[in-house]
Parts: sequence; C-alpha cells; structure tokens
Amino acid sequence: MPTSRTIYLVRHTKPDIPKGICYGQSDIGVFASFQEEAAITKAKICSFENVAHLNTIPIVSSPLQRCFLLAKELHNQETMFEQNMRTDDRFKEMNFGDWEMQEWSAIDEFVMSAWMRDYVNIRATNGESFREVVQRSNEAFRELAEADSKHKSIILVAHSGVIRAILAHHLEMPLHKAFSLEIDYGSISAIKYRPHYSSVLFVNR
Amino acid sequence: MPTSRTIYLVRHTKPDIPKGICYGQSDIGVFASFQEEAAITKAKICSFENVAHLNTIPIVSSPLQRCFLLAKELHNQETMFEQNMRTDDRFKEMNFGDWEMQEWSAIDEFVMSAWMRDYVNIRATNGESFREVVQRSNEAFRELAEADSKHKSIILVAHSGVIRAILAHHLEMPLHKAFSLEIDYGSISAIKYRPHYSSVLFVNR
Repeated sequence: MPTSRTIYLVRHTKPDIPKGICYGQSDIGVFASFQEEAAITKAKICSFENVAHLNTIPIVSSPLQRCFLLAKELHNQETMFEQNMRTDDRFKEMNFGDWEMQEWSAIDEFVMSAWMRDYVNIRATNGESFREVVQRSNEAFRELAEADSKHKSIILVAHSGVIRAILAHHLEMPLHKAFSLEIDYGSISAIKYRPHYSSVLFVNR
Repeated sequence: MPTSRTIYLVRHTKPDIPKGICYGQSDIGVFASFQEEAAITKAKICSFENVAHLNTIPIVSSPLQRCFLLAKELHNQETMFEQNMRTDDRFKEMNFGDWEMQEWSAIDEFVMSAWMRDYVNIRATNGESFREVVQRSNEAFRELAEADSKHKSIILVAHSGVIRAILAHHLEMPLHKAFSLEIDYGSISAIKYRPHYSSVLFVNR
C-alpha cells in the first residue's frame, strides 16, 4: 500500500422516513431530493481530489440502500462499477433490534432511560450496543485502509453511527462523546491513514 | 445568553515565514496572498450564517497580527469595529521561549527529542507546555461562550495550537492526540456551545 491513504467517510443523503421513528439497520429508501443531494456530495469529493469524475476511486458501502444508491451515483452509471465497488455488512448502522421502525416515544420508558444513560455498553432490546458498532466498523475500516492495493484514496459510504465510531476511535475519544460530533446528510469527513499515525483531515464538510 | 451559541474557530491565513523556522508567539506578518485568502474565509462564514456581511457578529482575536489582520478583514473597514472586536492574550499561540525564530534543526537534539516525546507536559526552553496552552485557551473560550450577551454567534480568530486545544478539550481527547486534527490556514471549525452539552459542528472546513 502507499505510505498514506485518504479514506473519505461519506454519510448517506436524507432518508425517506418521518421524524420520531427509530431506524438503524432497517432498509429505508432515499428522499425525493436524492439526485440534487448526491450531485452536491459528488462535486465536493471531486474538488478534494481535483478530478472530474470518481470512477477510478474504489468505493465500499454499507449494503443498505440509502448508502448503496449514493455509492452507485458517485461512480458513473456507464462504469463497470462492480470492479471497484463492494459492500460490507460491518458498515451497517447500529442494530436497534425490537425497536426498529417503532416510534421512539412508544419504547418502554424504563428500558429507554437505562439505555440512554449508557448506550455505549447497553444494547437496544435484541440489538447492539454502540461499543459493538465501534468494534465491527473499525475492524472493517482497518482492513480497508491497509488493503494491499495501489489506491491512494478510497470512499466509504456509511451511516452517522459508523462514521462517529470510526472518528472517535481514531481521535481516542471516550465513546460516550462520539455523538457530540455532528455528521450531516451527504457530508464528508476524511482520515489520512498511516499504519502508525493517522490524522483526521476534516469532519463534516 | 441564548440556550446555545455557535463559536467559529478561524485559523489565520498563511504567515510570511520560510519553512523550518520555529514560531509560536513571534509576531509574524501575513503572506502576499492575504487578501485572496481572507476573502475566501469571509465568504465561507457568510454562507454558514446566511448573511451578506459579518459586521454584527462579535470577533475575538489573538493579538498577533497574523490573526488580528484577518479579524479586521472579516468586519468591513467602514464599521466601528472597536465596538464588537477585541483581543485576548490567552488565545495566542504556544510560547516556544528560547526556540522562537530559531531553525528547528538548530535546537539541541537531546532537549528536542525529550520534548517531542511529551510536549503535552514538557515546556519548550523558557516557554510553555501544550497543557498550559490548553488551560489558558479553554478558560478564555468558556468566558467567551458564556458571556452575557444576546449574540447567537461569535467568531474567534486564533492559531492551530489554540484551535486544537479547544477542540481536544470539548471532545475529551487525550491531549497527545490533538495534533492528529488537521487545521489548515484560513480554515473554520465550529462548536455549538451549551452549558452542559456542547457539540462540534465541523472541523477544518
């Protein structure tokens, strides 16, 4: 691999779901403004890379459609994108188990307040804890960053929980602080990965 | 004060000094490209605030000219800027003491390697440790963020060491990791300050 590699952490665009609903691994579609949002995100990455298109930059994506549709849009449709695009389940959003697609306000108040106090360690009912998300996503991130290829840049399309998990790990933040990083729809964060000293180039551009 | 307040952390533009020279509190001038760089930074903040000019947003700056010149440029020259612009010594860059304006390569190798291993706690000769910078700059930041005024946004123009010190403190990062955050010349980072739970809106935009 090159001596350093830039990994762009791209959050999906606005999902097509009303406010107040709990969703993590549920496969929500994209909002009506998807094409415009995707074009803005694509233009930003092109400007960072100083290129006219992104076809030659490998993309790894969460398999959930709100990410994968954006990943496909970042590469041109004419490209044989299967060659340098793949999905990895470990980049899926946190699994909220029984709470998926429930209204947050309908979840048992006692269970919810215990979870709110320590979601780093406590699982959503039949779901995951944030610590589990941190472990699986950073394991996958490291494989990606250290992959034996000549590519100097890689694009990862994922979810806010996963992007925070990766940034918090690299900045050695306490995990309960990860959610103090704002990560907007369609935003891009970037890590310059080196085996012994990575740096965070920017967050939420 | 409002229930939350946005503080923009703006780094000065390119300083007029050759590479390889140690400077912290030395009062270096700005590079020939200053006007163009300042215009870009100003346009970015205007777009974040959705305003045409920044005159009504209070600015606090390091008194060093590479910061203060940018602070003046962000407000229009016609403005009575003294009313909502001030400097605070606690936002100055780290004091490198005897090393100021020396070539890094000319500093005693033994002293330098001890400092490099633990600049968080070890002072530059007759200068400051990074921990001291973290303490003074975050004390000043908190006063600024909690000041009794109606302003919802404040601009702070400072140095990369100070901006990293403030971000690392808010993200509860170990201080030795602060320098893994890239902070470019003329870049803007932002904190949404609330007395009990602040968030980092973006880093190095």
